[in-house]
Amino acid sequence: MAGLTEALDALETPCALLDRARVTANCDAMRARADALGVRLRPHLKTAKCAEVARLAGGEGITVSTLEEARYFAERGFRDQTYAVGITPDKLARVAAIDADVAVLTDDVDVAHAAAAAGLPAWIEIDSGQGRGGLAPDDPRVVACARALGERLRGVLTHAGHSYGGRSVEAIRAVAEAERAAAVDAAERVRAAGVPCPGVSVGSTPTAVHAARLDGVTELRAGVYVFFDRFQLAIGSCGADDLALSVLASVVSRRDGAVWIDAGTLGLSSERSMDPFGGGYGVVTAADGAPLPGDPYVDALNQVHGRVVARDGALPALPVGARVRVWPNHACITAAMYDAYEVVDDDRVVDRWPRLRG
Amino acid sequence: MAGLTEALDALETPCALLDRARVTANCDAMRARADALGVRLRPHLKTAKCAEVARLAGGEGITVSTLEEARYFAERGFRDQTYAVGITPDKLARVAAIDADVAVLTDDVDVAHAAAAAGLPAWIEIDSGQGRGGLAPDDPRVVACARALGERLRGVLTHAGHSYGGRSVEAIRAVAEAERAAAVDAAERVRAAGVPCPGVSVGSTPTAVHAARLDGVTELRAGVYVFFDRFQLAIGSCGADDLALSVLASVVSRRDGAVWIDAGTLGLSSERSMDPFGGGYGVVTAADGAPLPGDPYVDALNQVHGRVVARDGALPALPVGARVRVWPNHACITAAMYDAYEVVDDDRVVDRWPRLRG
Repeated sequence: MAGLTEALDALETPCALLDRARVTANCDAMRARADALGVRLRPHLKTAKCAEVARLAGGEGITVSTLEEARYFAERGFRDQTYAVGITPDKLARVAAIDADVAVLTDDVDVAHAAAAAGLPAWIEIDSGQGRGGLAPDDPRVVACARALGERLRGVLTHAGHSYGGRSVEAIRAVAEAERAAAVDAAERVRAAGVPCPGVSVGSTPTAVHAARLDGVTELRAGVYVFFDRFQLAIGSCGADDLALSVLASVVSRRDGAVWIDAGTLGLSSERSMDPFGGGYGVVTAADGAPLPGDPYVDALNQVHGRVVARDGALPALPVGARVRVWPNHACITAAMYDAYEVVDDDRVVDRWPRLRG
Repeated sequence: MAGLTEALDALETPCALLDRARVTANCDAMRARADALGVRLRPHLKTAKCAEVARLAGGEGITVSTLEEARYFAERGFRDQTYAVGITPDKLARVAAIDADVAVLTDDVDVAHAAAAAGLPAWIEIDSGQGRGGLAPDDPRVVACARALGERLRGVLTHAGHSYGGRSVEAIRAVAEAERAAAVDAAERVRAAGVPCPGVSVGSTPTAVHAARLDGVTELRAGVYVFFDRFQLAIGSCGADDLALSVLASVVSRRDGAVWIDAGTLGLSSERSMDPFGGGYGVVTAADGAPLPGDPYVDALNQVHGRVVARDGALPALPVGARVRVWPNHACITAAMYDAYEVVDDDRVVDRWPRLRG
C-alpha cells in the first residue's frame, strides 16, 4: 500500500476519502439483500448526497431528506423520489415546482389535505417505536390522512430509527419485525377503510441488514450502508473491511502524549450520538489504513483542530505534516462536512465526486 | 414584529438568519475596543466565512483558519491575511500560490526553515496555556524558529482558547493577562537573540472583551464576537441583544410534550462543547425572537430533525408548519452548516450573503 500513501500525498487535507470498491460492494450487497427479501430497494441518499454514489446504489427510485437533495437529484435525472421527512405546508409548492415525481410524507390530517390540494403524492408516516414522527398504526388519523389523500396516497412508511439502539442481532431483528408489523398493520387498516394503499415502505440500515422477513412490505429504504461507519460496525451491521468513508488529515502540532491534526469539528463533525463505544470522534490509522501502534483515536475537537491520543500505550512519533486516516463513527454527518469525495481504488486516487451539503 | 414574522414566511427552512444591525454594532464595538487598547484589530473570519461580514468587521488585515478561507478572501480583495493554524510542509506551496500576502504559523523548527525556503512570511505559535499548539515562551525552539525565519518572521502569535473555560470576568481577565504576558515574553526573547520580531498577536473573543491592558501587544484577533452566541452570553462576553445569528426552523411533527423541527444535526450542528449550561442544542423562541412559554430548547437531534421540549412548564401549541427561531450555543459551528446568511434588518429580509463552508 506504499503506492496509496504516495497517491494520497497529492491531496489537500482534510478531505473525505471514498473507497470505490467498498462502496460498490456495499451497494451490490444491499440490492441482493432486497432481492432476497422480495422487496424493492429505494436507497436513502441523505448519507451520500452524491449522484455518482446514487448510481452505484441502484434500486428503484430514491429517498431524500431535504428540498435541496430533491432538487439536486432531480437535476441529475432521478425522477422517482420520496422526500421522507414530515412535510410542512409551505414546502408543498416548493416540492411541486421540482421537475420530478417527488412524493411527500405526513402524519397530519390538515397537511394531508393540503398535499392533495397541491396535487402531490404522499405517504403516511407511521411510528413503529422511534417516537419521532408518525402515527401509531391504530391511530384513527391514519385512515383520516388516507381519506384526505385518496388517490394521491402512495402508502404507509415507517423508519425504525430506534434500531440504532440495538446491541445484538436478536435485538435488531426484533426491531425489524416491529417495523414491518407496524407498517403492514397500518396498511391493512387503510385498505379495510376502503382506500387503496399500494405501498408499504420500511427501513433503516440495521433492520435492512438483519430483518428475518419482510412479508407484506413493498420497499426497503436504507442509507448509511453505502459507506457504513464505526457505529454500524460496532452494532454488527458490517465488517471492518466494509468501511468505505474516512477522512485524510495531517499532523499540525505535537505535544507530549498527543498530536493535533487539521481535522476538527468542521472536518470530522462533533457528532457523538453514535459513539457509545468510547471511540471519541473517530479511530486513527496510518494513511494507507494500516493500524498504528497505541490504537490512537481523536478525543477532542476545536473548529479546525482534532487531538489524537493513544488508547493503549504510546503514540507513534508523527512529525508535523504526517498524514493519518480518521474512521468516523457516523458517516452521514462526517460526509456532510465536505463538498466532494476523493475516490480511491486500489492504490490510486481515481476520481473526485462532488456532493451536496444541504 | 408581526412584519418580521411575515417577512420570514417567504424563507425556506432551515436557514441561518443574520441580524445586520447587531452584526454591525458588534463589529463597531470590537474596533472601538481595539482602539481603546491601543492595538490593531485583525478579525478572525473562521466564524463568518463571508466577505460581507468581513467588510463590516473592518480592522487591518484578516485571520483565516483554512486554505479555502484564504483563497475565498483573496479572491474578494483581502490581501493581508494570517493563516492562524499550524502549517504543514505540503501546504506551503499551496499558500504561496494564493494571490495575497498570506502569513503562516508554525511551532516547528523544520517547518520554519521550509516556510522561509518557500519565501513565506510566518508567525511563531506560542502556547499561553491552552495546550493545543505552540511553544512555551522560554522554549529554545522559539528562538530557533525565529532564526530559521529571519526576515520572514512576522512575530509571535498566541490564542488563549482556554479563556472559554473562564466563568467570571476576573477569571477571563487573568487568562487575558497570561495570554498577553506569554506573547510579550516570547517576543522579548526573540529580540534578545538579535532577531527582529515586529508583531505580537493575541486574542480570543473572551480575552478581547475583558483584557485590562495589552501593553507590548501589536494586534488583536477575535472571531465569534461578530455574531456572539449563547455560550459567549453565558460567560459574559455579550448581552442577549447582541446575539446576531439564529436558525429559522419549521415544526414537522407534534408529539406529547415535544415537537420536532426541520433543523437537526445538519441544521444546528451537534456541537455540545459550548454547552455547559444545559441549553441542549439551542434555545427556541418565536420566529420574531420573542420568548415562548415553557422556555423551550432543542434537546435531541437526528440528521434533519431536532426535538423541542419545554424547560419549564408546557410547550405552546405549535402546529405543523409553525416557524420558530433557534439560538445556537456555538455560532461558528452552526453557521458552518449553511451556504448563506439570510440578512434581516428591522422587520425585513434585506439581503442574502453567500458564505464559504470549508
